[in-house]
Amino acid sequence: MARTAVVAGVGPGLGASVARRFAAEGCNVGLLARSESSVEPLADELDDAVAVTADVGDRDAVEAAFDHVREALGSVDVLVFNASAAAWEGTLEVSPAAFDRALDTNVRGALNCVQAAVPDMLENAPEDGTAGTVIFTGATTSVRGREGAIGFSAAKFGARGMAESMARELGPEGVHVAHVVIDGGILPPEGDVADPEEYLDPDAIADSYWQLVEQDRSAWTLELDLRPHVENF
Amino acid sequence: MARTAVVAGVGPGLGASVARRFAAEGCNVGLLARSESSVEPLADELDDAVAVTADVGDRDAVEAAFDHVREALGSVDVLVFNASAAAWEGTLEVSPAAFDRALDTNVRGALNCVQAAVPDMLENAPEDGTAGTVIFTGATTSVRGREGAIGFSAAKFGARGMAESMARELGPEGVHVAHVVIDGGILPPEGDVADPEEYLDPDAIADSYWQLVEQDRSAWTLELDLRPHVENF
Amino acid sequence: MARTAVVAGVGPGLGASVARRFAAEGCNVGLLARSESSVEPLADELDDAVAVTADVGDRDAVEAAFDHVREALGSVDVLVFNASAAAWEGTLEVSPAAFDRALDTNVRGALNCVQAAVPDMLENAPEDGTAGTVIFTGATTSVRGREGAIGFSAAKFGARGMAESMARELGPEGVHVAHVVIDGGILPPEGDVADPEEYLDPDAIADSYWQLVEQDRSAWTLELDLRPHVENF
Amino acid sequence: MARTAVVAGVGPGLGASVARRFAAEGCNVGLLARSESSVEPLADELDDAVAVTADVGDRDAVEAAFDHVREALGSVDVLVFNASAAAWEGTLEVSPAAFDRALDTNVRGALNCVQAAVPDMLENAPEDGTAGTVIFTGATTSVRGREGAIGFSAAKFGARGMAESMARELGPEGVHVAHVVIDGGILPPEGDVADPEEYLDPDAIADSYWQLVEQDRSAWTLELDLRPHVENF
Repeated sequence: MARTAVVAGVGPGLGASVARRFAAEGCNVGLLARSESSVEPLADELDDAVAVTADVGDRDAVEAAFDHVREALGSVDVLVFNASAAAWEGTLEVSPAAFDRALDTNVRGALNCVQAAVPDMLENAPEDGTAGTVIFTGATTSVRGREGAIGFSAAKFGARGMAESMARELGPEGVHVAHVVIDGGILPPEGDVADPEEYLDPDAIADSYWQLVEQDRSAWTLELDLRPHVENF
Repeated sequence: MARTAVVAGVGPGLGASVARRFAAEGCNVGLLARSESSVEPLADELDDAVAVTADVGDRDAVEAAFDHVREALGSVDVLVFNASAAAWEGTLEVSPAAFDRALDTNVRGALNCVQAAVPDMLENAPEDGTAGTVIFTGATTSVRGREGAIGFSAAKFGARGMAESMARELGPEGVHVAHVVIDGGILPPEGDVADPEEYLDPDAIADSYWQLVEQDRSAWTLELDLRPHVENF
Repeated sequence: MARTAVVAGVGPGLGASVARRFAAEGCNVGLLARSESSVEPLADELDDAVAVTADVGDRDAVEAAFDHVREALGSVDVLVFNASAAAWEGTLEVSPAAFDRALDTNVRGALNCVQAAVPDMLENAPEDGTAGTVIFTGATTSVRGREGAIGFSAAKFGARGMAESMARELGPEGVHVAHVVIDGGILPPEGDVADPEEYLDPDAIADSYWQLVEQDRSAWTLELDLRPHVENF
Repeated sequence: MARTAVVAGVGPGLGASVARRFAAEGCNVGLLARSESSVEPLADELDDAVAVTADVGDRDAVEAAFDHVREALGSVDVLVFNASAAAWEGTLEVSPAAFDRALDTNVRGALNCVQAAVPDMLENAPEDGTAGTVIFTGATTSVRGREGAIGFSAAKFGARGMAESMARELGPEGVHVAHVVIDGGILPPEGDVADPEEYLDPDAIADSYWQLVEQDRSAWTLELDLRPHVENF
């Protein structure tokens, strides 16, 4: 039976690539974004996809969105948490509101999506095999606090801590939790950059996400990093 | 001239040890806690100490508390951020309120205290020497996501991300930011434990905190771990 | 054209699984082991495979073995460095000879194989695409010094340092260097264990190795961990 | 009673600062270097110091040197392993000899010194308190494999693995093992650099080393980093 994957945080970049790739592998795909305009065209393009809108930090809206996906496509097997909000200000410059927005989206938003998706996974857990997969999209800042971005650093570290905690708790229940450190810039959809070699191709990232879904539960990855071959790191 | 240190999060354990040690080294000490009863006796015990009460997550209360310290003891040179609230529930059990409380205290609380203290440090920065010191009290969970404690994992990782971000931003300005990973249980004040050898003595931790304050700015530590010699880690 | 892969350190476990998987993907496979008996039957089983024998710590023998592979199967595109020797003694118990053996196999052996394989990769580097892949088999001890195994800790940390150094140097040249942390026990070939769920299936590990070979160079992984879903870590 | 400290790897820089500081704290100091000229003047300068010469990679010479120290100053309480040899060549350029030299000094040399010093510590272990201290001088490359320095990366990672392994094994026996990551350049003795602010003052590093010796065993540090306040890291 087809798996149902929810991609939370779908814009024209990585989220869309993941959705397309997972659909091509036979998944039903729920596309969650803040605005309809980001996801309607993609939902139309894909078979067995639905677009739902919610700010991930809004718990009720997230629950409603997952209910909608569940009714349309069946219970959730895979969650890709790809939503992110940055706070690019330094220690004294950042406003409490901007700082909170980063926490709301990256950390509280992750909790909202996880609490909406994981019960489905546990309910359908097979005797033998993967009950479900949760993938967090991380960044360089997830593992290296970034100068001048105290809110983003708090938020990305925080989400990584959640992923590690969940992996230890849920692994034995059959739920695979993984955290991917995207260590570089993602090629923008228009591709109008000086040197595309310096960017991660979102389709290539989506390949690695799919491999995580496919991993046998005897050899699961909690964390991997991804970067362009020319990246100076 | 005597330095003024604020210890945010003073209970009978580590916070009190740090306050006593810093006072013994000649610091004026501001003792910040949620309730007066936790800090009044200690403020009475020490010379040049004031007790102030605030929930660190309450921005206005924190600002008022620092104003009070500033008026009583002078501008702030050292901040020890020792407040912590845990959320000891797993992924599906944790309530949004408990999860938020962990973030409010450990992460947003850190921001509130930092934004109240660091401007003093920058204003008084000497040409040569340390302008100020900020020490975060971390835990094992700061570097290892803990099974069954998703909120605490998010919060302690988040605070560590802030410390790293701040260290990179503020180091060149003369402010020393350090994060201490307390990897074990702290000996409770009553000391009624089966084997005290298995616990960190809070006075010994306070020694290391003081050494961080004293470090020459040509050789600053961002992170160190502390654990009992018998700890299995 | 078929790629040529050398698996250095082939026993009946992980090395054999990697060789079989890479052969199934169309690779020519060079099987390098210390004794012929470990690899002859596997070489007979696979098409386009040759068995070569060398102690990886013996530089001349390694060079001769790679020459043999090169003549039989063409220039080398992929190296899986899977050889390992442990020194399971503590600080005072370990003999200099046992300590050296661990370094010779894990560290110097890696250098010998790398220096024999990488020139082929650089020579055949395409304008666009991967010039070659080097995968190191790591262990829990690669990232966590192990009590009572000082030599193994030195050796596994050392090899990881080499992998990181090489990744930074050779990535821009098109050579993908990856280090895989195998965080658990590998299921023995006979499979006579109390609970197979607690072990990594070597075929599942080989899947992840193959995915590393297939990664697009815009999104390469330097390090990933692998462990059984029930692992307590 | 005065403690006896051996500093292995004494040149005019960090080793000399550590020796001077430890002597000033009342230690007897054994100064171990490859050539007499590096240590004789310092031994003359200090009270209760002896100079001994050995290549740390030469096991017999190391044993003889420690015997000499032991006879002159008493059994060894503290070892600072500060010897280092770099191999600044890349993957294909490094010669086996240069690679071995890095391993011989940093890794095998550490084993030789540790096996000569630790038995003294264990023999004199008090019921309560520190039996001895071993400090490894690490570098940025200890935690981040360095492009174009494969041998140095192998060696510095390897020594760090040893330190972690030893800390877990020997901590419960009362021996404190610590690893210090020096993340920046050390101010050269002549001090003729463009901007001294960009360098670590070796006397400031020695302060932190001494604090490690003084730590109460209820709160030991395994690892700390040190860098100039202006360091870009």
